[in-house]
Formats: sequence, C-alpha cells, structure tokens
Amino acid sequence: MINEDTNVTNVPPEYMDAMREFRESIDNIDAALVFMLAERFKVTQKVGHYKNKYNLPPADPDREKKQIERLRALALEANLDPEFSEKFLQFIIHEVIKHHEVIRDESDR
Amino acid sequence: MINEDTNVTNVPPEYMDAMREFRESIDNIDAALVFMLAERFKVTQKVGHYKNKYNLPPADPDREKKQIERLRALALEANLDPEFSEKFLQFIIHEVIKHHEVIRDESDR
Repeated sequence: MINEDTNVTNVPPEYMDAMREFRESIDNIDAALVFMLAERFKVTQKVGHYKNKYNLPPADPDREKKQIERLRALALEANLDPEFSEKFLQFIIHEVIKHHEVIRDESDR
Repeated sequence: MINEDTNVTNVPPEYMDAMREFRESIDNIDAALVFMLAERFKVTQKVGHYKNKYNLPPADPDREKKQIERLRALALEANLDPEFSEKFLQFIIHEVIKHHEVIRDESDR
C-alpha cells in the first residue's frame, strides 16, 4: 500500500534530479506527439473534403481494420502494448470521423 | 445527407490516387506516433519505478495540470484543437497511471 502521508521532503535530491530529467524527456516527446497529430489532422481534413466531394461516408471500416492490424504489428516491434496501440488509433479515428461529419454537414447547408 | 448507396465505381481515378497518397502520409505519421509513444512509456516506466522506490503516489495532479496547460498552448501553435490535445494527454496519462499501479502492486507482493 501507498503511504498517503508520505513526506516529500524525505525524497533525496538524486530523485528530484532524475525526475526532472525524465520529465524533460516526456515533455519533449509530448511536443513531438502534438505536432505529429496536428500534421495527421491536416491530412485527414483533406481526406474529409475528398470524401465529401465524392459522396463517400466519413467512416471506412475496411481501411480501419487494416490500420489496426498494421499498428498492432508496429507496436510489438516497438515493445508497446498492442492493445494500447489499437485503443490509441480508435481514439484518433473517432476524432477524425467527427471532423469528417462536420465537413459533410457544412456542405449540406 | 450521405447517399448510402454510393457506387464506388463512380469514383474517378484521380480520387483514388489522392487517397492513396493521403493514406501513405497517415500511415507514416502513425508509425512515428507509435514509436514515440513506445519511447514515452519507456520513460514513464522509469518514473514509475522511482515513484515506487520513494513511496510516491502513481498520479500527480499538479504535474498533470502543468502538462495540460503546456500542451494546450502547443496545440494552438500547431493549429490543433486544444480540447483534443487535453483529451489526448489524459488518455495517455490514464494508461501511465495504470502502469504505475502495476509497478506498485507488484512490489507489494
């Protein structure tokens, strides 16, 4: 069990140094992730406009299935939990489909 | 409204070419995201072991608040929805806390 009364002043300086270093790496990686995601949505917005132009539905289960299989394989290679990679992709795709629906609904007005 | 009976054979070849190109970019970005996430979890696993060693709780609301503020600012800069960047970070942190709890519970045995 965690001791909820932990006195953080008991934490040695080397812990604080290590944590600072870890957090710097996490912050760098998070910035990279945010900019990558921004780039990904730039591409999927183009996809959304194309789908709308050619009257295709926002979601594409066949494509999604292939993406999930591919990402699970890449996750294994990267020593990342494949279940997590699948949840991650679904989290992103959920947002993409919302964007595609907005594009579609705006063109319906 | 979307026409659910869309005949995809009516889609012109230039659409197929554009979509192939978009999907190649999406797949490249997704691979980058998966490897970045793997790297991020490598760092947070180290954090988890440190927290466990010094008997600190898996979650850290103050740190989390700062991370959210920072990522929302970066999202604005990248033209990404700040709400999405916050949801994204919470999705990742949720997974990290689960990992930290596993580390803690394993050391309790």
